[in-house]
Amino acid sequence: MAGTNRQILIAELPKGKLAQEHFRLAESSMPVPDDGQVLVRARYFALDAAMRAWMLGPTYRAALTAGQMMAGTALGEVVESRSAGFAPGDLVFADTGWQDYAALPAERLTKLPSAEPVTYLLNVYGTAGLTAYFGLLAVGKARTGNRVVVSAAAGAVGSIAGQIAKIKGCRVVGIAGGKAKCDILTGTLGFDAAVDYKAGPVFPAVQAASQGGVDVYFDNVGGAIFEAVLFNMKQGGRLVACGVVSAYDADPSKGIQAVRGVPAWFISRRLSLRGFIVSDFYTGGRREAALADLRGWVESGQLKVLEDIVDGFENLPAALIGLLAGDNIGKRLVRAT
Amino acid sequence: MAGTNRQILIAELPKGKLAQEHFRLAESSMPVPDDGQVLVRARYFALDAAMRAWMLGPTYRAALTAGQMMAGTALGEVVESRSAGFAPGDLVFADTGWQDYAALPAERLTKLPSAEPVTYLLNVYGTAGLTAYFGLLAVGKARTGNRVVVSAAAGAVGSIAGQIAKIKGCRVVGIAGGKAKCDILTGTLGFDAAVDYKAGPVFPAVQAASQGGVDVYFDNVGGAIFEAVLFNMKQGGRLVACGVVSAYDADPSKGIQAVRGVPAWFISRRLSLRGFIVSDFYTGGRREAALADLRGWVESGQLKVLEDIVDGFENLPAALIGLLAGDNIGKRLVRAT
Repeated sequence: MAGTNRQILIAELPKGKLAQEHFRLAESSMPVPDDGQVLVRARYFALDAAMRAWMLGPTYRAALTAGQMMAGTALGEVVESRSAGFAPGDLVFADTGWQDYAALPAERLTKLPSAEPVTYLLNVYGTAGLTAYFGLLAVGKARTGNRVVVSAAAGAVGSIAGQIAKIKGCRVVGIAGGKAKCDILTGTLGFDAAVDYKAGPVFPAVQAASQGGVDVYFDNVGGAIFEAVLFNMKQGGRLVACGVVSAYDADPSKGIQAVRGVPAWFISRRLSLRGFIVSDFYTGGRREAALADLRGWVESGQLKVLEDIVDGFENLPAALIGLLAGDNIGKRLVRAT
Repeated sequence: MAGTNRQILIAELPKGKLAQEHFRLAESSMPVPDDGQVLVRARYFALDAAMRAWMLGPTYRAALTAGQMMAGTALGEVVESRSAGFAPGDLVFADTGWQDYAALPAERLTKLPSAEPVTYLLNVYGTAGLTAYFGLLAVGKARTGNRVVVSAAAGAVGSIAGQIAKIKGCRVVGIAGGKAKCDILTGTLGFDAAVDYKAGPVFPAVQAASQGGVDVYFDNVGGAIFEAVLFNMKQGGRLVACGVVSAYDADPSKGIQAVRGVPAWFISRRLSLRGFIVSDFYTGGRREAALADLRGWVESGQLKVLEDIVDGFENLPAALIGLLAGDNIGKRLVRAT
């Protein structure tokens, strides 16, 4: 690998389901950092369903285009630094893209503390943990005694959001696909109930499991499941729009999936819906305070962390394709070997 | 009329468009107030599109049923009082139903101050004014410099909401049906622009009129117009769900109109949507403070009040049917003659 830099490029943008053919492996020479830049070697790549949305059009970042390197964040190690703030060996988080080595301006790196295991930095102590934390508490304003429903509940964000809700004294129902995931929710993670959306209609299952309506819905999926929970919301309920995994891997020319009950149901039941991006909450010391809470809960054993680690740089496309199909349980990472 | 009491009953619940055949006139004997009750003679009935929604199923009130008297609020005058709190001649507001006389428990009456004209008590100083006020300022949090869009903008609530937004220093676009209404918005009421939804596609018209995206959308209609404005929202925009007039008079067996972009667009643009019922904001002196503001603006000429008064008790059904078709400009009342 010395002297060369593997990169995974977008061969063409997907029109429907994401597949191997949309990616292509390339090799370039190792990047050389300019003054003020840092050379980073990626150790773990973080995968997230939202990466598929980046291929659909502009979101909270510019749309990806064919020919470009696939974008993505990684936990890396500084190999060479031409910036006073970083030294070889430092652990950093950055949007490196899918490549072995990235030369990046120092201001685009976040220095990471130590953690054991180090992969938690991309999981509960990273975007997933913070998204769950701020989505549930700052956006959803979940309080003791609330009935909380979380979708994609066996995923990275959902599994953490549901457990934080339990820690805060809520009754928690998780929605996931398949018995294995549902068993983990009610077994390992301590959710009060689980709804297997593949086993039957979601509306009556949520109605039964929530025992009197839903105060807070933490939505990671959109579409039919969003609608089924919407019609189960209680007076004054709060819906948190965190992700739309049901839509990312679909063919947009077949139309965007529409949701019924909007806005009528919001009036009758005095509901609110709010979409958010986790970095909106990073200011004023809130990020550090959240990380301190998360660390405390993990160390006390109240918050269990699910890891799903795939080995091999070349498996990045397959790992993302599988994530979109719901293959993962917990945070999916790719170890850069 | 002496000794008898005209009532308008629901002959049958509408399955599609509301029509005369869904109502029937009846006469009963004049009600006699019990101890603690007050006999009220209705002078003006307030009409609102939401009354049609009461016929669809439970909303913020129980569903209406066939055979029942049509529900509705009125400005009335106390004729006889068996409660210490009321005396003959008092002006009151109550859910009297559609009848000449109602005998109601005193706690279900609201004593009204004087106003000139008295009809403003059912309009800018009543539910319409307060709904516009709290919807725009407390729910939508409209601030100076915001770009505000209001739908059903020539209606009672919309016309007031748009003018309050202008008073608060916003740029205001109203959506209404037909050139006559649009001319009133930009002429009489001082809106910055108007979009005639009958004249062409709404999305590009709102895009052009809002000049760079919408901060606050005050929605009275739902459906396709809601969607067209949703896709024009700016980062951090706020949508206020106040009414769904597009859905009230439709056939529910043909399916509830679904909206695209929910929840995906809420994430990309960090939007929020909140439904409300005006009475949620009546506590803690807020109602009185709002009425003082509204009165100040009306008296200074900053807030113009549109009235649409239909004469004759027997015209109540036709007046409501016409309201649902958008015939009214401003608040539609029926004078009880």
